[in-house]
Amino acid sequence: MPRLELAFLPPIDTPDVAVVVDVLRMTTTAAALFDLGLSELIIVADDVAAREAAQAAGALLIGERQGVPLPGFDHGNSPLEFSATAVSGRSAVLCTTNGSKAVEAAAAARHLLLGAIVNDRAVAERALELAQTSVTIVCSGTNGLVSLEDVLGAGCIIQRMLDVRSDLDLSDSARIALQLVAADGDLEAAMRTASHADTLAALGFGADISFAARRGSLPLVVQRSARRPARFAVSY
Amino acid sequence: MPRLELAFLPPIDTPDVAVVVDVLRMTTTAAALFDLGLSELIIVADDVAAREAAQAAGALLIGERQGVPLPGFDHGNSPLEFSATAVSGRSAVLCTTNGSKAVEAAAAARHLLLGAIVNDRAVAERALELAQTSVTIVCSGTNGLVSLEDVLGAGCIIQRMLDVRSDLDLSDSARIALQLVAADGDLEAAMRTASHADTLAALGFGADISFAARRGSLPLVVQRSARRPARFAVSY
Repeated sequence: MPRLELAFLPPIDTPDVAVVVDVLRMTTTAAALFDLGLSELIIVADDVAAREAAQAAGALLIGERQGVPLPGFDHGNSPLEFSATAVSGRSAVLCTTNGSKAVEAAAAARHLLLGAIVNDRAVAERALELAQTSVTIVCSGTNGLVSLEDVLGAGCIIQRMLDVRSDLDLSDSARIALQLVAADGDLEAAMRTASHADTLAALGFGADISFAARRGSLPLVVQRSARRPARFAVSY
Repeated sequence: MPRLELAFLPPIDTPDVAVVVDVLRMTTTAAALFDLGLSELIIVADDVAAREAAQAAGALLIGERQGVPLPGFDHGNSPLEFSATAVSGRSAVLCTTNGSKAVEAAAAARHLLLGAIVNDRAVAERALELAQTSVTIVCSGTNGLVSLEDVLGAGCIIQRMLDVRSDLDLSDSARIALQLVAADGDLEAAMRTASHADTLAALGFGADISFAARRGSLPLVVQRSARRPARFAVSY
């Protein structure tokens, strides 16, 4: 009976399988990029190191700080700004405010996945296949505060995990996330009450919220393939 | 419009009014003790320091580690083990596993209250009276993990605050706690799904859970009157 633990914010111990969740927008954008044919994603928290990694790898440079594209980067962090032409077969380096830090905080995990609402079922199934003892979901939050949309995302993934195995040993935090999703019929409406959704809508990224709330729309798994720097590949 | 922030676990910044919540059982027991006539409560995290403080103050020594009474202490931490005869007019030193640490983590607050489900309305009203800019609820958790019963307690207090002022600026975490309470008709049943409720029931403290779930049954406020050591007094 695997243990299911959830951190509303990093850090937390991630001894076995970790799932990092940053619904608005890093892990949603990662799923969107691989859906468009990206071959590899490298996640780097520091923007100077991100520039160097992109140059070394001949990779696209994608990133934002507080929702705004970083100067000199090829793209910001909106899942809607990419085309298959631009990303297919390419590598990308991604540098964001909160999600990158959660990936670093979960670095010790045996397996590390990026989870979102758009790929909740695929991630849930893979996490359970990989788990020896536990799955730990790590919500990224926003500048050290809990983000509603990440807890909704965690609740979606937990609900899908329980579809596969009803005997999971749920932590209290996992129960809270699950109840939050069970109580909310309309995920997108719930997400729009989140503080970071307000920020994004004010910056003109309202459509990103609708995209991020489309449950199960991108049935793919983004999984770490190498640790330093953290490299990710897709599988189905 | 006061800001309402909630930490599912310490630490968090507590710039104005802080409410520490440890439903099972420190803040519930604190309310019960004052209801029985206790004159002063001193909260000390370290058990050696607690013994010294009790001896210096001629105070009752109350405390537990992991739900079990500490050796040589006058009482454990069950709200049901005290009588008015034993506590009326006395001072007590309280030393517990998680709640004491949350009190220390919130020490910088301008005003510090202890909140529970049994006094949710009284604490909510006082917190809003005292607030200049913000109320920060600090859930104690259990050994570094989120406790469901504390988040339920926080949700109860937030619901009562919104009865007084509907224009509060709620953080995402506050919204999550509020939805958890709004979705649950039966607080006691919800509390019994909590991990620490299992532990207490196994130790024979099942009745404490029923006591702690009686919403608004002890309409009193426990408020810090001095900082080092943290001393608390009652008011109505």
